[in-house]
Amino acid sequence: MSKQMLPVFPAGEGCCAPMVREPLAGDDAAELARMFKALSDPVRLRLLSLIASHEGGEACVCDLTGPFDVSQPTISHHLKVLREAGLVSSERRGTWVYYRVIPAALNRLSGLLQAPVRASVPAGAGG
Amino acid sequence: MSKQMLPVFPAGEGCCAPMVREPLAGDDAAELARMFKALSDPVRLRLLSLIASHEGGEACVCDLTGPFDVSQPTISHHLKVLREAGLVSSERRGTWVYYRVIPAALNRLSGLLQAPVRASVPAGAGG
Repeated sequence: MSKQMLPVFPAGEGCCAPMVREPLAGDDAAELARMFKALSDPVRLRLLSLIASHEGGEACVCDLTGPFDVSQPTISHHLKVLREAGLVSSERRGTWVYYRVIPAALNRLSGLLQAPVRASVPAGAGG
Repeated sequence: MSKQMLPVFPAGEGCCAPMVREPLAGDDAAELARMFKALSDPVRLRLLSLIASHEGGEACVCDLTGPFDVSQPTISHHLKVLREAGLVSSERRGTWVYYRVIPAALNRLSGLLQAPVRASVPAGAGG
């Protein structure tokens, strides 16, 4: 694979082999399934996106309640699920807790899901 | 963003903006959450990986039962969940059903999860 075909994220930072290259081992699958489970809720997905796209890559919990029709405790629960899945980190500074995504975790999932490149092999290249 | 920083998968084939670029809309989040829910089970993740990594990018259901300690009906159920989430397609040929991953669906999820590139901005580049 040539260098210029590397993906946009920094190589080596939590990246992993696509699942198209070799079958997932059971232990990896269990850990990855937990991370995907954290992404299996629309509010959590939107929270993660809000945090990731927020100026400076960090969002105060005070920025995260407004856009949703759910209560502050529900938002806090969803943030806890994202944190326990290793997708975001949190830090208390003064009154507020600030959240950022963990790039290595997102890159791991993104790399895993890279689709088969065989789809781009020209038709008729084989026998 | 420069051309050489494009990811490995074929551009335009079901790809989408990373969630770090802008917050996810509610409708998108609901649809994506359903796809991630299909990935939130270790057996389903391993099945998807087995199909994706199988020779020719296609696996017969007869190839997919052996590696697991679960019954054939359970495997069939998991395959149905993957199919209903739009992650794999299936085709009956003769006695067997054959499965392949849908590259556009994997690329959509992979592209969505690309981590912030701001992590690679050189330290001290700002004020």
